[in-house]
Amino acid sequence: MIVRDYNRIIEDERDRVVSDANWTSVRMLLAGDGMGFSFHITFLEAGSEHTFHYKNHFESVYCMEGKGRITDLATGETHEIRPGVMYALDQHDKHTVVADEQLVLACVFNPPVTGNEVHQADGSYALEDS
Amino acid sequence: MIVRDYNRIIEDERDRVVSDANWTSVRMLLAGDGMGFSFHITFLEAGSEHTFHYKNHFESVYCMEGKGRITDLATGETHEIRPGVMYALDQHDKHTVVADEQLVLACVFNPPVTGNEVHQADGSYALEDS
Repeated sequence: MIVRDYNRIIEDERDRVVSDANWTSVRMLLAGDGMGFSFHITFLEAGSEHTFHYKNHFESVYCMEGKGRITDLATGETHEIRPGVMYALDQHDKHTVVADEQLVLACVFNPPVTGNEVHQADGSYALEDS
Repeated sequence: MIVRDYNRIIEDERDRVVSDANWTSVRMLLAGDGMGFSFHITFLEAGSEHTFHYKNHFESVYCMEGKGRITDLATGETHEIRPGVMYALDQHDKHTVVADEQLVLACVFNPPVTGNEVHQADGSYALEDS
């Protein structure tokens, strides 16, 4: 059994915390944990906008706090994000997320993120062995 | 892209809500959604105790609200559950969860739950095709 505490990670295990200008992701589970998915608590800062295209991953995102919007860039359709709303990128959907307030999100990736990926220019994560 | 709202499910899509005496699970994503995992918001009632043994599944559980304890029945070790604590049953660990206050949990299963499983007498979910 693996037991991890988000609050302890924030204080003591900063190698599990990755940030860019306007987002922070706390990596609760990664590929090496052997669960077959990874699990992340992610913060998108108020006022920020993010375009992602996970060509190689499925991702689900559950909003725990905050307010924002997600636009499906294939259809142009926009959905409100608020606590309790989940979106799942079952078509590897290219999308833009806007955080009107800081968003706190519980994210699941399949295949699991290894921790070594970088966001590519096209908004995707490469697979580690690609 | 799949978009679902927990609050709408609670009101209008009760087929996604399963309950037993002391727990309720809201099925945000199931196997049929094709993500390769399932995602559930689960409530364990204050004062309740639950023993599970997911022999056929990996499960991670992230505490969003409440207070409780998990005991690994193989080792006897007990861990506190509070907001921010995650446990992951990477060894299909048989375990007992006690909710000292109502626990609100974000749960991920791999392989994904189909929605047709029943808890068996041994605390496991059978695989649908087993």
